[in-house]
Amino acid sequence: MDQIGVLSYALTGYQFSAVYNMLSLGIASMLFTSIFLWIARDRVLPKYRLAVMVSATVTSIAAYHYFRMFDSFSHAYGMNADTAVANAGGTSLDFGAAHYNVGYRYIDWLLTVPLLLVELVAVLGLVKAVQSSLLKRLVPAAALMIILGYPGDIHSHLFGLDNSVWGLLSTIPFLYIMYVLWVELTKSLSSQSEKIRKLFQGLRLLLIATWGVYPITFILAMGQTGAPSASDVVSREVGYTIADILAKCLFGLIIFSIARIKSAEDDKAFAAAEGH
Amino acid sequence: MDQIGVLSYALTGYQFSAVYNMLSLGIASMLFTSIFLWIARDRVLPKYRLAVMVSATVTSIAAYHYFRMFDSFSHAYGMNADTAVANAGGTSLDFGAAHYNVGYRYIDWLLTVPLLLVELVAVLGLVKAVQSSLLKRLVPAAALMIILGYPGDIHSHLFGLDNSVWGLLSTIPFLYIMYVLWVELTKSLSSQSEKIRKLFQGLRLLLIATWGVYPITFILAMGQTGAPSASDVVSREVGYTIADILAKCLFGLIIFSIARIKSAEDDKAFAAAEGH
Repeated sequence: MDQIGVLSYALTGYQFSAVYNMLSLGIASMLFTSIFLWIARDRVLPKYRLAVMVSATVTSIAAYHYFRMFDSFSHAYGMNADTAVANAGGTSLDFGAAHYNVGYRYIDWLLTVPLLLVELVAVLGLVKAVQSSLLKRLVPAAALMIILGYPGDIHSHLFGLDNSVWGLLSTIPFLYIMYVLWVELTKSLSSQSEKIRKLFQGLRLLLIATWGVYPITFILAMGQTGAPSASDVVSREVGYTIADILAKCLFGLIIFSIARIKSAEDDKAFAAAEGH
Repeated sequence: MDQIGVLSYALTGYQFSAVYNMLSLGIASMLFTSIFLWIARDRVLPKYRLAVMVSATVTSIAAYHYFRMFDSFSHAYGMNADTAVANAGGTSLDFGAAHYNVGYRYIDWLLTVPLLLVELVAVLGLVKAVQSSLLKRLVPAAALMIILGYPGDIHSHLFGLDNSVWGLLSTIPFLYIMYVLWVELTKSLSSQSEKIRKLFQGLRLLLIATWGVYPITFILAMGQTGAPSASDVVSREVGYTIADILAKCLFGLIIFSIARIKSAEDDKAFAAAEGH
């Protein structure tokens, strides 16, 4: 249990740069999507602003965690601006246990994944009772999915259960979310215009495609012995970062587009003023 | 008195990670609830904006203190960016007395707990005389409750009094606050709609449930010898952080919901524009 988050293997300079640059790309994408969305909320009608603000909150939370992960990673591998200890050629570092804190990703997901479902439902502008019923099921399921995935990813063998068991347990709420989004929510789509229905279907596909990266990366990173190797860690960090950028930044920008189109549909004066 | 806030025992890597990640979760929750609430104040009628702004102030003050606590904790256990001393395997640190400043929590509570009662009363939009009379009693009682709890939590034996005596003294203003909220304030609820009454009752229960965590954690952390062990400190930090997130972020977001519903009830044009 003492070994949680401890990387006892070394990365080559090339591997280090790959993760380092991806995490920096994560910071840039999350931070500036956030600033854009916070300010762009005024370009939709008041009834759609909360959906855009929740999208901005998601990317803001992720920006904070990418800053933390970047520092944690740089520090764990000793190649930060202060010390400039190069970790080339697979040598290990000169201080004992180098920590790269995997917890940041899970805390980020615990907060952002439920909020992604909130923005997805909120932007449709459904009747309050329907919206509330959908969210009361989606939000706890999303939190449960993340909480059950964590013990597997950190190789805790919590309650004596194997990583793959935690992975499977986490799949149950995932399938439930898919059911609610594909079956229950589809009923509410009939009131939407053709254009919105298409965008929404694209959004749902983006969600399943990007969320699919997490379990695939998770399985790949289990390795043959059940503990990840250096190159497993690199694939995991690169895979998670690309998935995060698509699932949060691209997703949030599509939410903004939907809110713009629905605003123009609802109000002709707004549409004219905004050049729609 | 020299031993205030001094952790003379070591945490395992797992215990360190648990507290470290909880404090980071605290930062993320407080900071982004704050940004959301500051901007979301425009989504309620002007008469309810001060209540939302006080909620945003509470989470902002807490965000500051969570940044401080995160740094204080990381530094006390030597795992910060400057020193990079890993604290693995239960070894103690190589610099003398590692301070984790417990004072931050109490300074935070001294400011935020009275403000939580201000937002709770302000959002009801009561007659000014009633509101003022309630706050003149609730605010000093809340400050007194925190001030009397502090000497017990730091094991100061101030004025020769035992920790448990300070804990008991702190309970007196707590019970008075409960009396005001459950008996006095209930009279004012008759003018509110059914929906608001239900939300308000939930809010009061959230308040008593989360505030209850503090004395329970306090009692648990007293330990058998009167001084906390490493695992007592871990439970205390984790317990306080979860209670803080519920009592400030969730509480503030419910205040925002109440303000939204009351805005929609008061003004039909606002309700229509906001999609209520």
